[in-house]
Amino acid sequence: METSNILANNPNLKSWVEVPANSDFPIQNLPFGIFKTRSQSERVGVRIGNQVLDLKALYVLGYLENLPFEASDFENKFLNDLMGKGKKATRDLRNHISKLLSHDFEDLKVNQHHVDQVLIAADKIDMCLPVQIGDYTDFYSSKEHATNVGTMFRDPANALLPNWLWIPVGYHGRASSVIVSGQAIHRPKGQIKPDPTQDPIFAPCRNLDFELETGFITYEGKPLGDSISTAEAEDFIFGMCLFNDWSARDIQTWEYVPLGPFLAKNFASSMSPWIVTLDALQPFKVASPTQVPEVLDYLKCDADKSYDINLEVLIEPKGGSENLICESNFKYMYWNMSQQLAHHTVNGCNIRCGDLMGSGTISGPTPNSYGSMLELAWKGTKPLKMNDGTERKFIHDNDTVIMRGYCEKDGVRIGFGEVSTEILPAK
Amino acid sequence: METSNILANNPNLKSWVEVPANSDFPIQNLPFGIFKTRSQSERVGVRIGNQVLDLKALYVLGYLENLPFEASDFENKFLNDLMGKGKKATRDLRNHISKLLSHDFEDLKVNQHHVDQVLIAADKIDMCLPVQIGDYTDFYSSKEHATNVGTMFRDPANALLPNWLWIPVGYHGRASSVIVSGQAIHRPKGQIKPDPTQDPIFAPCRNLDFELETGFITYEGKPLGDSISTAEAEDFIFGMCLFNDWSARDIQTWEYVPLGPFLAKNFASSMSPWIVTLDALQPFKVASPTQVPEVLDYLKCDADKSYDINLEVLIEPKGGSENLICESNFKYMYWNMSQQLAHHTVNGCNIRCGDLMGSGTISGPTPNSYGSMLELAWKGTKPLKMNDGTERKFIHDNDTVIMRGYCEKDGVRIGFGEVSTEILPAK
Repeated sequence: METSNILANNPNLKSWVEVPANSDFPIQNLPFGIFKTRSQSERVGVRIGNQVLDLKALYVLGYLENLPFEASDFENKFLNDLMGKGKKATRDLRNHISKLLSHDFEDLKVNQHHVDQVLIAADKIDMCLPVQIGDYTDFYSSKEHATNVGTMFRDPANALLPNWLWIPVGYHGRASSVIVSGQAIHRPKGQIKPDPTQDPIFAPCRNLDFELETGFITYEGKPLGDSISTAEAEDFIFGMCLFNDWSARDIQTWEYVPLGPFLAKNFASSMSPWIVTLDALQPFKVASPTQVPEVLDYLKCDADKSYDINLEVLIEPKGGSENLICESNFKYMYWNMSQQLAHHTVNGCNIRCGDLMGSGTISGPTPNSYGSMLELAWKGTKPLKMNDGTERKFIHDNDTVIMRGYCEKDGVRIGFGEVSTEILPAK
Repeated sequence: METSNILANNPNLKSWVEVPANSDFPIQNLPFGIFKTRSQSERVGVRIGNQVLDLKALYVLGYLENLPFEASDFENKFLNDLMGKGKKATRDLRNHISKLLSHDFEDLKVNQHHVDQVLIAADKIDMCLPVQIGDYTDFYSSKEHATNVGTMFRDPANALLPNWLWIPVGYHGRASSVIVSGQAIHRPKGQIKPDPTQDPIFAPCRNLDFELETGFITYEGKPLGDSISTAEAEDFIFGMCLFNDWSARDIQTWEYVPLGPFLAKNFASSMSPWIVTLDALQPFKVASPTQVPEVLDYLKCDADKSYDINLEVLIEPKGGSENLICESNFKYMYWNMSQQLAHHTVNGCNIRCGDLMGSGTISGPTPNSYGSMLELAWKGTKPLKMNDGTERKFIHDNDTVIMRGYCEKDGVRIGFGEVSTEILPAK
């Protein structure tokens, strides 16, 4: 699909809505999410600056005419119905909203009575899980992460498994326990084997970890039996979010052979509430790392398919302040989203509107860019110092883990907001 | 929940609807499914003999009063809304239908005009996927199967991995590609490595296999963070089906380390269309195999939780006849469904109405009871002879794989019908 018609990306656009300097949400972003207020049920919103545009209210006032949407697409618990209208429709919608909010366009801005109905302060609303996730798949696509894990648990000289450079390795995750930023979770319990010479025990996880990831959300794919090529893949991606793939390392170690992680992951995975459209990310396209050996034909790409997204992780102990513990970037990923989607469907597997695909832990080349506590504290051997004097090998009870991300170029910053989750003690 | 109020299980009941001898569907069964006709969209049906009872028509005619259902629960693409009313409601519904269909109850049977509207010949309808599956989990709970696989691929002296006797090992599967019996699929393509000394290639799967399984369907569970005990587990199970967990063995071998099977499984999994309620299976309860070592407390059961379900697999080559290649039984399973569900939720993972849990391949103790071609033909070393003179190491193009299952006791036979899938050549 042509990207030249993404008018909303014009870096010269200014909005009549006030946008603070360094905001994640200038008029060039316009991410979609689901919000609710005390008096109203869930609706689709678009974020700009510190305001949220209520699309249901906008629709009722007649500002979304000549677009293929109906009221129920906007007064909805999820974005799925909106995404179900397809990429052209959602692109046209974002372009149209960009026009309504732009400084040069008088239609909405001169009508303060309408503005008061459609713009709500972001601190007056609650954000909800934006998507009804059909299936959630998680990949394992950072070479640095796979190498670090292989070095720690297997052989530093053969850290990568033989299939890793050939396949964007992935596995199925649990959709029911994907939660939105802000929802606290309890430390999971499960079988662990702290003493390798003794029987396993049932206990709260001792090595609770985050994984710094991004996720992407799909449009409806092709029927079962068909495949999506790398050239087509981006036409099937609605947008991206920040994603924390919580991992109970001690549960994982004991359970994962031979069929992969299960209870070590499915107690919760956290996503950020605003889905930044793939359209909005187009100006930040960059090349992926060179792939050697050359990948098989169905994984080859004829253009750049990665994105320059700065990522960071912070730990905030209860009552304390934020500690920046990781600075990474999405562009380090060895396998890009188009390759992941092409691989996922090459056997005929069907994807649906609202599927979530996690990138896998995004570790960069330097120790401060590693995307998990496992790597940052190197299996507990290099604890991280917090600014309150305490140390972290893994995540403590009452810690809040925060991930943030943004792109920046030519004076435009497209941000993701954050995904933030507090860990409560085990029940 | 008390099982003494399952009136529909009375072995002495007879129906005024004709039920052929040896039918899977006597009045003591009454499984639920979704059907459609040429002129009408999807509806909930209950099978009896060779007839299907149209619950929407029954509701409209006023036969389902004083039950907590509405018309939209029965005119529906899926059973989820019906199951969403909970176990008491669905039990009451089955008991009520049993009464309507029983010989001694005159209400419906004397009204031929109504009977004509609510009973449809099973060969006049199409069966649909019965459940909108939220998440699909597959277990690995047959000791014989795990031992066979371990013997073939690892060390016969240490065939079971260390965690196997402690954990009902499971992994997440793909919900989008679960299909109903009767839908043909194409042989999947993918990365395989036929020559271990050469690079992988992209090609159609050469070692296509079935896995003989059952599945169970859940009611809405508890909120994220809570667990379901083994004592509570059956209250959260609506019913069971036959399940064929298709497996591309050569794709699996190359891809599955370290995060488990992915493309080797997610091209399709087939389920039978009639969900036999757990209520209907109560008379067939049996003990599970003794578990040594003793399992951890949260996996202990205070009563029998397995079921005596005869299972068989047949291959029907195109234009040929059925070949019975496997006779197994659900009762061989080392881990029962209550243990699987207790384990799945012990970390706080939430289950939802309409989740599907596969048993894992159900292999018995004798070579003719092994539940996959991998085991039956022992990694291709003992090909199976078909009655047309051909041989099978794995499944050929245009083969149809059929699985059937039934319980039998005190003159009552509760059957599952079948799950049947034809393999078309790769696209």
